[in-house]
Amino acid sequence: MANKASSRLEWRINVPGGTSKVLEPESGAVGKIWVGLKGCMGIIVWKVWRVLENAWHIGVADPRKVIHCIKVGLALSIVSLFYYMRPLYDDFGGNAMWAVMTVVVVFEYTVGATFYKCINRVIATFLAGALGVGIHLVAEQSGDQLKPIILGISVFLFASAATFSRFIPSVKARFDYGAMIFILTFSLVSVSGYRVVELFELAHMRLSTIAIGTSLCILVTMLFCPVWAGCELHHLIHQNMEKLADSFDGCVTEYFKENGSEEDLKKKMQGYKCVLNSKAAEESMANFARWEPTHGRFNFRHPWKQYLKIGASLRNCAYCIETLNSCISSEIQAPPCLRKHFSNKCMKASSYSINVLKELAITIMKMKKSSNIDIKVAEMNFAVEELVDALKSLPTTHFIATTGGEESTKAKAEGVEGSEHPSPIIKVLPLVKVVSLMVEIATRIGGVVNAVKELARLAEFKAAKDGKPKQNQPTDKLVSDH
Amino acid sequence: MANKASSRLEWRINVPGGTSKVLEPESGAVGKIWVGLKGCMGIIVWKVWRVLENAWHIGVADPRKVIHCIKVGLALSIVSLFYYMRPLYDDFGGNAMWAVMTVVVVFEYTVGATFYKCINRVIATFLAGALGVGIHLVAEQSGDQLKPIILGISVFLFASAATFSRFIPSVKARFDYGAMIFILTFSLVSVSGYRVVELFELAHMRLSTIAIGTSLCILVTMLFCPVWAGCELHHLIHQNMEKLADSFDGCVTEYFKENGSEEDLKKKMQGYKCVLNSKAAEESMANFARWEPTHGRFNFRHPWKQYLKIGASLRNCAYCIETLNSCISSEIQAPPCLRKHFSNKCMKASSYSINVLKELAITIMKMKKSSNIDIKVAEMNFAVEELVDALKSLPTTHFIATTGGEESTKAKAEGVEGSEHPSPIIKVLPLVKVVSLMVEIATRIGGVVNAVKELARLAEFKAAKDGKPKQNQPTDKLVSDH
Repeated sequence: MANKASSRLEWRINVPGGTSKVLEPESGAVGKIWVGLKGCMGIIVWKVWRVLENAWHIGVADPRKVIHCIKVGLALSIVSLFYYMRPLYDDFGGNAMWAVMTVVVVFEYTVGATFYKCINRVIATFLAGALGVGIHLVAEQSGDQLKPIILGISVFLFASAATFSRFIPSVKARFDYGAMIFILTFSLVSVSGYRVVELFELAHMRLSTIAIGTSLCILVTMLFCPVWAGCELHHLIHQNMEKLADSFDGCVTEYFKENGSEEDLKKKMQGYKCVLNSKAAEESMANFARWEPTHGRFNFRHPWKQYLKIGASLRNCAYCIETLNSCISSEIQAPPCLRKHFSNKCMKASSYSINVLKELAITIMKMKKSSNIDIKVAEMNFAVEELVDALKSLPTTHFIATTGGEESTKAKAEGVEGSEHPSPIIKVLPLVKVVSLMVEIATRIGGVVNAVKELARLAEFKAAKDGKPKQNQPTDKLVSDH
Repeated sequence: MANKASSRLEWRINVPGGTSKVLEPESGAVGKIWVGLKGCMGIIVWKVWRVLENAWHIGVADPRKVIHCIKVGLALSIVSLFYYMRPLYDDFGGNAMWAVMTVVVVFEYTVGATFYKCINRVIATFLAGALGVGIHLVAEQSGDQLKPIILGISVFLFASAATFSRFIPSVKARFDYGAMIFILTFSLVSVSGYRVVELFELAHMRLSTIAIGTSLCILVTMLFCPVWAGCELHHLIHQNMEKLADSFDGCVTEYFKENGSEEDLKKKMQGYKCVLNSKAAEESMANFARWEPTHGRFNFRHPWKQYLKIGASLRNCAYCIETLNSCISSEIQAPPCLRKHFSNKCMKASSYSINVLKELAITIMKMKKSSNIDIKVAEMNFAVEELVDALKSLPTTHFIATTGGEESTKAKAEGVEGSEHPSPIIKVLPLVKVVSLMVEIATRIGGVVNAVKELARLAEFKAAKDGKPKQNQPTDKLVSDH
């Protein structure tokens, strides 16, 4: 302890420069600083190493991200060529810079995001350029004194209005970037109009360099391993559905199994958390997806908004599974005999529910109307009804089983305290909770079924080959029945 | 029907240009087009009107957004002055444009976001500029043939690497904008280095104009009605806590009240949805808050991350309240007599739980350690224990009450079907669900208590004046006990 304190003291005295009070003769001030530096370097190297390791894992997990980086490098190198080649350079002069800037700013991971930015940038530049030139002409007429005032006021007004428009949700979702570019271009045109005489030429330059940049971005992003926001959203919803099914399965298995839990099961059970947290990702992807042209199995007007509804209904299920999960991990549990009694019925109900979810996941993946979803929903509902019936008949049988018939009942009726048989409801309670949550989850899966059916209708999914869609069967009634 | 079909037909024929088949003599093709145009205009006017109405509501709801717009206009007008004033213009030449661009791109709603972008922009520009000039000097040495190749490869490599770094979560959270500006500046310096001889001067120009732009933004954003991301996060968490309390209160009141529901109550009950959806907002605010200097009651190193933990624990509660809400709105309910029996105990437990939440909300708002939170938590736990006890004693009393003693029990024990007394558990079930969810919510409120206590410890909240903090009381144990 004393040694520690003295070394700290020595350190404090050494730093200002004095070396007269060094207590350990074998290491001087330089040595100390060297050790300190080595420590710092070590920490930095370690941190950089961790970031690199992290980066490596990200690259291995999704090689498309690496490809995206190569695409950005490629697009920038190509656009630099415009600059290096003298004839092109002479055409555009110093404005070739705008093409480089456009590529850097506009190139995004998904095709949809790139389209969104490109279209916004081109339209906003055009509008703001036209408006800026118009106002400039008006200002020109009103003399040198008024000109800066008119320009200043117009910049103030339009910039404020465009900034405010970014707060309106519907504008923000579609034209946020456009509003920013509008302000930028309008200010630049107004401001430089004061100096640069060839305003039309400047506007023309800027538009054509931006056109070069955007078309290059669109070409590169679409030709080399395109990442479609729509596909991503589609896969995300599909994966979330599978994760939810797995997680529900994991919870029920965990609850009713007899031996100790495994690591795999624990991991599987956590899948619902992804569903809970994917709202922001879904929304941004749906926003970008609507800018994408027809690709693969998706049309230009694919009902992307319906995916958000499916996502919401999945999250609805996930809330319940979250509660179920906390029931399962709670320490107070129903006695094993009771659990065993319910095990079969619960496993049946849950497996039918999971079947429905898996069938929906297949419907989404294949984009074909499922021929037997109605049957599966009916099976699920039937199993849930059976489970509810079992719950209805529970208190009598259990009451008899644990308290051994009439005498005990009498004793309880007379309010005898301290009876050695605990009151049944508290034993049944955890099980009742689990079962009622399972029933609730099945109801909410009904909501998912309806959302997926609506998607199938809106996107005109074809019927699957291995059967006919049974449209006349009253499934919606069945789903909302319980 | 026939009329409709013919008018549709006429329309189709008219549009290509022919007027020979017009069925209604009083309106020619021009008239039709005029009607169509009027219709289109009407729709556009209506849409614009709705957007404006929307904008008006947004402005009224949060006047700071309007102030933000004025601030942006102001900053842009000021920066335009640099351009209009000849002496300054002559110093910076065409590069004054960079100052305008910086203001447009960097000025954000909150001070934190503006700082984040300013600092990222300045550092990234400096780093990329230095690196670009360095590589340019190396390329210069290797002859005219190799120079474009070296520059092209370096652009490719650095752009790819910087793009990839944006996929690493820790980098993305802090330096996403910086990485983009790094790519931008590096490409511009490399590319323009090929032509412009005065590379150092260009770099210097860009740095100084960016410095002017960023310092102007920081001044304007901090001096006129600053919106601090930290304060926003603080208020959001505080509001969410209140909303959660209100929504829990609303649910329980709605369930146990006897007369019809009111609109106010319904609205109050929906508060938990805000909590469920505020994750993204919390995260972005926490990200920005850490860039902010000391302001008001918040230090530079205020533990913003702990707010995220409080937010997560609040969402944890909200999941349960969501399930509770769906229990309440379900059609199958426990009989009124039963509900009345439990009403008092449930209301007591919920009001104590709500008290705890409200006390926590006050702790957060005042940033003072609460003197009686431990007592309130103990009260809540006691009320919950009472509720659980009531539930334990429920089946016996209720069983006797509904089935009238031994005979019925016997009949049930013998498996007689079709008895006119429904089995008790199905009657009790909805109530049991509600009560067990209330118990679960109380447990999760315990999680919120712990998170807020941790915040009070990290941020060194002072004790409230009206009492002493009772640190020795074993609250954590109490909280995790039930």
